[in-house]
Amino acid sequence: MSGRQGNEGSDPVRNRQWLLKTRPHGLPSPGDFELVESELSSRDLKDGELLVRNRLFLCAPTMRNWMSGQANSLFPVQPLGRPMMAPAAGEVVHSKHAAYRPGDRLTYFGSWSDYEIIAPAGGNVSRVADDMSLTEAMGPLGLNPQTAYFGVTRVAPPKPGDVALVSGAAGSTGATAAQIYRLLGARVIGVAGGSEKCEWLLKTCRLDAAIDYKNENVRDRLKSLCPDGVNIFFDNVGGDILQAAVDHMARRGRIVVCGQIASYNDDATAEGPRNMMRVVYGSIRIEGFLRSDYLEHVCEAVGRLREWMARGEVVHRIDIRRGFSAAPAVFADLFNGRNAGTLLIEVDIKS
Amino acid sequence: MSGRQGNEGSDPVRNRQWLLKTRPHGLPSPGDFELVESELSSRDLKDGELLVRNRLFLCAPTMRNWMSGQANSLFPVQPLGRPMMAPAAGEVVHSKHAAYRPGDRLTYFGSWSDYEIIAPAGGNVSRVADDMSLTEAMGPLGLNPQTAYFGVTRVAPPKPGDVALVSGAAGSTGATAAQIYRLLGARVIGVAGGSEKCEWLLKTCRLDAAIDYKNENVRDRLKSLCPDGVNIFFDNVGGDILQAAVDHMARRGRIVVCGQIASYNDDATAEGPRNMMRVVYGSIRIEGFLRSDYLEHVCEAVGRLREWMARGEVVHRIDIRRGFSAAPAVFADLFNGRNAGTLLIEVDIKS
Repeated sequence: MSGRQGNEGSDPVRNRQWLLKTRPHGLPSPGDFELVESELSSRDLKDGELLVRNRLFLCAPTMRNWMSGQANSLFPVQPLGRPMMAPAAGEVVHSKHAAYRPGDRLTYFGSWSDYEIIAPAGGNVSRVADDMSLTEAMGPLGLNPQTAYFGVTRVAPPKPGDVALVSGAAGSTGATAAQIYRLLGARVIGVAGGSEKCEWLLKTCRLDAAIDYKNENVRDRLKSLCPDGVNIFFDNVGGDILQAAVDHMARRGRIVVCGQIASYNDDATAEGPRNMMRVVYGSIRIEGFLRSDYLEHVCEAVGRLREWMARGEVVHRIDIRRGFSAAPAVFADLFNGRNAGTLLIEVDIKS
Repeated sequence: MSGRQGNEGSDPVRNRQWLLKTRPHGLPSPGDFELVESELSSRDLKDGELLVRNRLFLCAPTMRNWMSGQANSLFPVQPLGRPMMAPAAGEVVHSKHAAYRPGDRLTYFGSWSDYEIIAPAGGNVSRVADDMSLTEAMGPLGLNPQTAYFGVTRVAPPKPGDVALVSGAAGSTGATAAQIYRLLGARVIGVAGGSEKCEWLLKTCRLDAAIDYKNENVRDRLKSLCPDGVNIFFDNVGGDILQAAVDHMARRGRIVVCGQIASYNDDATAEGPRNMMRVVYGSIRIEGFLRSDYLEHVCEAVGRLREWMARGEVVHRIDIRRGFSAAPAVFADLFNGRNAGTLLIEVDIKS
């Protein structure tokens, strides 16, 4: 029942945790969190539970929603005074579950803690295949690319000749979605902030066009790039870009609502289309989705993503930051454009 | 080539028309229209066109949108100074189209005119079957019930045990949709204004529950009627009822956007959901549609509606008003709740 390396076998373990102290207004800042230390013992484990050592955290924009505490009755709200919930990858240290052993590598719905107790029965625990690193499991083959895969292939697969518009296209979900649309035969337009990101979309992701929303008029560019309208809009951003897209959708257009990052730091909620009659007259479909709707197809997603990436057909950028103690500051980079690709926090276990 | 009765054979014919003079603000009033008379001759017909005598007009709420001139680039805007566009039924008087003869009975996209010239090639002309009256073609088997049929069977068919919520449930589209949901096995809740309409929904349409939005709190009633949420929302109304429904949708719920009558008399457009993250976290689908998306299945719709109505399983109310000259005033009754069922205007041809 001991861990495989040095101090990790000690029991109880010293455990750092970042608690959410106050609900942020606007951009979350380190002051909204509190770093605490306590002890965690394998004696705290109940039957069916695992004590895991966290290795990597994914910084996902949607975590900002969990912090805001706006009840939507569909997703757990981050409680104040509790460790910040986060997608995580790590290793089993102690197991009271027959199917798991120390050393097993997993991804799960965790929290900003060195160690924590998780229960596989909740459905939020996945094994990491032997031929995959934890970084791969969290980055190129992880939550964001899988989300993109299901959004494109299940929610709005393209028909030949379709124009697919992707917002947040330089983000890890958006870039993957855009490239899959390209692979599946659509003409793809990416929307991103700044000329550098747009150049990356054109040159490296090989999109057909890119719109720099910080320096260009999205509506005008849409009109000139696709006079017959947008057939598919894969939306990570919401806000003004969503409004421009709705007004420029072709008849029977489909909008995949993956995220609404434009509003995550507002105290207000993310507004939908302001002209629903366009939705009626256009026979437009707007559909939200979660990766977890497609859990039984995760192997398919990982397999196809891996193949595309091996062939260089889908590129993925990853941005790993070291240091548990910087977690809140690193997370904020998601919203100030300072990350380049999937943003991961590598946990530096204290000795 | 002459008509079958009396003066209709005369050529040219005297032709009354209601022109849209000004775009209404709020409820459209007779002052927004102008009654003019002119002559129309079969000599004005081009190849492929028909001169028709209008017999019945359908008052459809969506006509109010056409009047407002808000460009949505998907539906023709009613031009000022031109006869008001309206779904119509009538008879061919003269034909320059090989497939149509005088006396043929048709429904079409017409206008508030005694006579007019239409072109079947546009796709907006349908023949009325020999065993069907024009009133049946415009009322119980017409545009509104067909719209309901396609919305229910194509856009969001119910699964066993689904809770289906229908707004504008006492209107001819809503009532048909609600009854079809009931027939297909859903538990159906109708929302309507006033206790009389709600009683009609419960007793005559045999819905499971009715919410009187004028006298009840829609959110509270939804919570108590369906604690596990709404699976399907068939929306004719939009506005506050749409917001309440979005907030109360079950996971993977589907919203059929048929109309947004709450906002038709506003100068503003109809707002969509104000919390798109609920759409994401709930994997909710919102889909607009038009009857015309399903033209190739109209026979199926008419056949099934007729069968259900013959068996008394779907009831339909019809409210026929006589008099071309009252058309604008009759139309206004759609929005002040003074109609009871499908509102038709019967054209009284001048002698």
